[in-house]
Amino acid sequence: MTASTFSERINTAQIEESTDFAPKFDPDGLIPAMAIDATTGEPLMLAYMNSESLKLTLETGEAVYWSRSRSELWHKGKTSGHIQKIIEIRTDCDQDCLVLVVEQNGAGACHTGRKSCFYRKVLPGSPAALKFTESELSFNPDDVYKK
Amino acid sequence: MTASTFSERINTAQIEESTDFAPKFDPDGLIPAMAIDATTGEPLMLAYMNSESLKLTLETGEAVYWSRSRSELWHKGKTSGHIQKIIEIRTDCDQDCLVLVVEQNGAGACHTGRKSCFYRKVLPGSPAALKFTESELSFNPDDVYKK
Repeated sequence: MTASTFSERINTAQIEESTDFAPKFDPDGLIPAMAIDATTGEPLMLAYMNSESLKLTLETGEAVYWSRSRSELWHKGKTSGHIQKIIEIRTDCDQDCLVLVVEQNGAGACHTGRKSCFYRKVLPGSPAALKFTESELSFNPDDVYKK
Repeated sequence: MTASTFSERINTAQIEESTDFAPKFDPDGLIPAMAIDATTGEPLMLAYMNSESLKLTLETGEAVYWSRSRSELWHKGKTSGHIQKIIEIRTDCDQDCLVLVVEQNGAGACHTGRKSCFYRKVLPGSPAALKFTESELSFNPDDVYKK
């Protein structure tokens, strides 16, 4: 396994039109990463990576995030078995965002017991409201996450 | 047109399992929004919304972001004609992220002249590098964006 390194951010042309991978981390050292199901194309979850978790993701081929609530590395699926195998990682024009195309292991990505975290759609109004699009649970979170 | 309002964030059960739309804005007042092409399912871009831009998006049915670089409301496509018509908005379990399913007007979403901002994939290594997945331009950005 080769230790991953990133390129420096030099200028717009280099960032947008070259093959240098020069990810931009925000002032907290984080970059957002949207995981998308490789089979269905469905968005599964959005989480954040710091430099170390991005390197671990590249080196292990499994999604490793940074948990902002727990302030620790978060190897997705380590507890639940719901590992995300990396099929492809994309970055955007200004390299301040990632898309992870993943093979989602197990019944789902969401800690609520659903396949995707995006299980509700927004209905405009006053107040705006939500409508469930995936109300059936794919798994029982109490069985999967030891509490 | 009814002015949009949001619900207060009360507790985890309400946020995750109710139909209250109670979006969480970060300390800068922003929430990330990933736009996805309604036809192809491809991720197009990630941008940010503040409360006002999210309300405008709900009320107009077109994507309005907050430009962090210009510190102003950003009605996507106002200059380029590349309007994003909202088909559906999803939020995630903890309501701190949005997915916009959009009908992308015009040749593309990216200011570089490409359909999607995610036109490069990451290759692990030391240094990690990028590979273009969409190198052909869909439009000439100099023609579209008046400079």
